[in-house]
Amino acid sequence: MSTAHRPRITRASRPLTFEVEAINERGEALATPIAGETPLTIYVDKREIVTLMTLGQAPEALAIGYLRNQRLVRSVDEIAEVQVDWETASVAVTTRRAIRGLKERMKKRTVTTGCGQGTVFGDLMEEIDAITLREDVAMSEETLYALLDAVRRHESIYRSAGAVHGCALANPRAGILTFVEDVGRHNAVDAIAGRMWLDGIDGSDKIFYTTGRLTSEMVIKSAQMRIPFLVSRSGLTQMGYEIAKRVGITMIGRAVNKHYLLFTGKRRFVKRIGATLLA
Amino acid sequence: MSTAHRPRITRASRPLTFEVEAINERGEALATPIAGETPLTIYVDKREIVTLMTLGQAPEALAIGYLRNQRLVRSVDEIAEVQVDWETASVAVTTRRAIRGLKERMKKRTVTTGCGQGTVFGDLMEEIDAITLREDVAMSEETLYALLDAVRRHESIYRSAGAVHGCALANPRAGILTFVEDVGRHNAVDAIAGRMWLDGIDGSDKIFYTTGRLTSEMVIKSAQMRIPFLVSRSGLTQMGYEIAKRVGITMIGRAVNKHYLLFTGKRRFVKRIGATLLA
Repeated sequence: MSTAHRPRITRASRPLTFEVEAINERGEALATPIAGETPLTIYVDKREIVTLMTLGQAPEALAIGYLRNQRLVRSVDEIAEVQVDWETASVAVTTRRAIRGLKERMKKRTVTTGCGQGTVFGDLMEEIDAITLREDVAMSEETLYALLDAVRRHESIYRSAGAVHGCALANPRAGILTFVEDVGRHNAVDAIAGRMWLDGIDGSDKIFYTTGRLTSEMVIKSAQMRIPFLVSRSGLTQMGYEIAKRVGITMIGRAVNKHYLLFTGKRRFVKRIGATLLA
Repeated sequence: MSTAHRPRITRASRPLTFEVEAINERGEALATPIAGETPLTIYVDKREIVTLMTLGQAPEALAIGYLRNQRLVRSVDEIAEVQVDWETASVAVTTRRAIRGLKERMKKRTVTTGCGQGTVFGDLMEEIDAITLREDVAMSEETLYALLDAVRRHESIYRSAGAVHGCALANPRAGILTFVEDVGRHNAVDAIAGRMWLDGIDGSDKIFYTTGRLTSEMVIKSAQMRIPFLVSRSGLTQMGYEIAKRVGITMIGRAVNKHYLLFTGKRRFVKRIGATLLA
């Protein structure tokens, strides 16, 4: 993958927490860390696409991942440059060749979903049926526990300030490859998608972890990245469950410490590597 | 308020939880309740507006509140009828007189914010500066504790299935007026806004409670409803804090049991009614 195209990008991470004063129930004034949140407007070839509210930890990956998950850009090869400028709260994406039909693709964006009103739904269900996830991969309980432990060590903003969601992309053998926190779980997953494109990472044997709930949109995005394993600390919704079953993703919810609930795709989950499959 | 216009509405609440089988860490198959999630497409005078993913507890109020918070409809008086049909997963809103400039208003919707990519931001900041919240109202610590206790008793879906956010509108003297749970905190706050219009409730002396994080969008929506008190179980973000300070809302975060952090608008919060103000 060393020969893959890499866009030129800035590395413009913002300060992630700020301190403000709050008064607690004992009347004490406490310096309290809160999570950053700032608008970031994405432009593609000078055309305004969207304004996201973000923590600002990985703005370049977020912009690319947003364009990827909204299917406004079809391949990282289309992107020449990604320049974040916090002074103007903007990220300028320059393509190598003007994207044809960008206007039409933008019309297809639907304000929907999961967090209530997130993004992309429309004709995604049709796409979902065309996705086949790898069946020759397995995750063990031991790997799951190691992942949960690693996530705990990564969560810096959440631990100090709360009010953020974290997402991780992990390799069953090598641990966490990327960990992103953001004020919204949609942004966190988009940033992971962007990072995968930037680093040329194939999702087909990876684990996607999120602190957020497993709604329809989360399952759809994981499937679009061809990731067969989806793990969450939180619960799931009916549509998240139904889509996960339909696409055959291995989905685990309520995963904290040594507890978890395995909902779908049970065939890829094993108690121990070498053991017989669970179900 | 008995003379106020009331639209004709259906009362089409859906089943809110479903049971699926999950396997836990001890290998036991458990019947596990999960939260409902279903698409609901809003039409205004047969024009498609948006598809939301919702729990479906209060679809009529959600539709009206979405149109209100997106400022697509300016007054409940404009609405003649709200008809939910789960067979087609749609809600048909009929106006009394065709809304002028609906197309232009729709263009102003921005996909943004808080949950990552929620809704409405654009020129909202200008509007915020025009808002004045009442200063002749106060909330006591006792009222706050009573509210937290009442919320705990209301949270039915959250308790059984998780994966939902709850919002409540409360009267400092009379307790909770409306409690809505939904798969997204944006939907829950929109449903409260719709309910306020339907029931002719004025927000200017009310408390808005949310289980969700206090991001910019939550503070903006509360201010738009003229609500002076905003309480959350969760934390807050930098922009949520800055907007709350700017508009002078009394904002309390991390409110659980007998704990809380008072961040802004301290002048309206008192230890006991009759006591001197805290700050």
